[in-house]
Amino acid sequence: MSQPLRIWIGLRFTDEVVASLRAMLAPHEVVISPLASTSNVNPGGRDDSGRDCDVLFGQPHPDDIAANPRAKLVQLGSAGYTRYDNDAFRAAVAARALPVCNSSSVYDEPCAQHALAMILAASRQLGAAYVEQREQAWNLGPLRLGSTLLRDQSAVLVGYGAIARRLVQLLQPFGMTLLGVRRRPRGDEPIAMIPTPQLDARLGEFDHVVNILPLSESTRGFFSAQRLGQMKRGATFHNIGRGDTVDQDALIARLHDGHLGAAYLDVTTPEPLPRGHPLWTAPRCYITPHTAGGWHDEPMGLLRHLAANVRRLQAGEPLLDRIA
Amino acid sequence: MSQPLRIWIGLRFTDEVVASLRAMLAPHEVVISPLASTSNVNPGGRDDSGRDCDVLFGQPHPDDIAANPRAKLVQLGSAGYTRYDNDAFRAAVAARALPVCNSSSVYDEPCAQHALAMILAASRQLGAAYVEQREQAWNLGPLRLGSTLLRDQSAVLVGYGAIARRLVQLLQPFGMTLLGVRRRPRGDEPIAMIPTPQLDARLGEFDHVVNILPLSESTRGFFSAQRLGQMKRGATFHNIGRGDTVDQDALIARLHDGHLGAAYLDVTTPEPLPRGHPLWTAPRCYITPHTAGGWHDEPMGLLRHLAANVRRLQAGEPLLDRIA
Repeated sequence: MSQPLRIWIGLRFTDEVVASLRAMLAPHEVVISPLASTSNVNPGGRDDSGRDCDVLFGQPHPDDIAANPRAKLVQLGSAGYTRYDNDAFRAAVAARALPVCNSSSVYDEPCAQHALAMILAASRQLGAAYVEQREQAWNLGPLRLGSTLLRDQSAVLVGYGAIARRLVQLLQPFGMTLLGVRRRPRGDEPIAMIPTPQLDARLGEFDHVVNILPLSESTRGFFSAQRLGQMKRGATFHNIGRGDTVDQDALIARLHDGHLGAAYLDVTTPEPLPRGHPLWTAPRCYITPHTAGGWHDEPMGLLRHLAANVRRLQAGEPLLDRIA
Repeated sequence: MSQPLRIWIGLRFTDEVVASLRAMLAPHEVVISPLASTSNVNPGGRDDSGRDCDVLFGQPHPDDIAANPRAKLVQLGSAGYTRYDNDAFRAAVAARALPVCNSSSVYDEPCAQHALAMILAASRQLGAAYVEQREQAWNLGPLRLGSTLLRDQSAVLVGYGAIARRLVQLLQPFGMTLLGVRRRPRGDEPIAMIPTPQLDARLGEFDHVVNILPLSESTRGFFSAQRLGQMKRGATFHNIGRGDTVDQDALIARLHDGHLGAAYLDVTTPEPLPRGHPLWTAPRCYITPHTAGGWHDEPMGLLRHLAANVRRLQAGEPLLDRIA
């Protein structure tokens, strides 16, 4: 057995989960940050409580990573990794052969199920029905007429990674027409694919546009006023990527003027969306508050994934979800 | 070519659909009832406008069927057939070798998609989120914690026919634990099955109870106060069958006292549900107004199905969706 490691935990969990974590990781030592954050989405500031640790788990600040020469593994507790997605960070960790992993395989299943839930909610008019329920009106006719069958519908998946791969599997029995978009199609995807620059010529074809883009300098504002305007009239815009990839004012305008049939959003900008923000009340806009990756057993899912990578690190095996 | 038939249409369609229908059925003669109903759900009264017709399509009154010796086919425009589901009617049509078909294969796809939409809405907390949206509150924590992955969940499908068969196909990629219930399991179902009397001993095991029962004397009030009470605490009750199969007062009580986690209902009793009815405002009760079978191309779907059966009738081939 290799040397026990010191494992820094930068996310806050319940006492019960921490106890499970210690048992799961024994004989390694678990160091809980006193600044541990309950948010897995908003990266925090500097925190030197992990300076003597071998494994850094959570959203460690890049400067804390740089200041820790002992680090053997950085494991991000999220699928998104905007703060680490730049050449300077990649060069720094490459120079010291420090592997960096995210937790995308923890989140692909809930996110893909959430995306399908949104697509089906759109096609079966659930958002409209649950909003109309407060009026106590039995509007059978318009809701039936607005409903669709996915075999007659098409979707473009913008941002083709682990979530889209799983979503394609879940959509398989429906016979829906699908197109995937990624920077560099590999040729082994199970659906038709195009590289990102070809999207503009095709955007107007689809009933559902599913935004799964991570946030980076190249994706910020990707769904611009122009691209939202290119969407087919009556189409539905879905977002389970990041709010900052969308021109939200343009989205709101396109819902008000009726160009878009609906928006199903799991992410917004900013988050939390403040009370009184016009997105809350935009017509046919249905919001889940960044819940797509969540499920009741998420903490244990994350920690099992961490434990698996710690074991792989010590066994010299390939790490899961390595991003740098 | 056999003799052209006179085909009575007892449902109301738009002029455009009627024109398509005449073209589709030519050289047969189409007779539109002056009493044609826009409702495909509530069977109407006597209507003798089909008395000289060979095919009766819609919801013809049983007495009108009896009074028409010329009828060669009765094609119901719905999946449900409560009014025709009794021994007296079956004996009467059997005595004159009059085939009766319903339109279940038109409705199994939208109903199965709707059922999956409800199951995913429950597991991803969409109902709760869209209701909370009106408060403009970003309740990320409780909604994530209340979310589930279907691979960790179980569902019992009560009423195993064409809709359940299709729903099982749609659920296949999720790895959900499934049990089907029907009067007489055939042994060729792709999931574990039990006959109806064994349900009571198993009802408490499931996270989702999906009611797909048609209405008949044996299913009226099937989900009694006792059976709803046997459900697992926190489980979700779904209904895409018929409202009268449920003790709705007991359902409302079990939502108020917190025994049930949620109810996703597409059918109620009565329909339309009147303004002020306590079901509209029962906690965690999410209602679509009998829209599960609908979609924008439903009229053409129904009429293609009618045309297919007319062709089969004349060719002496087995009829689709024959129920008597």
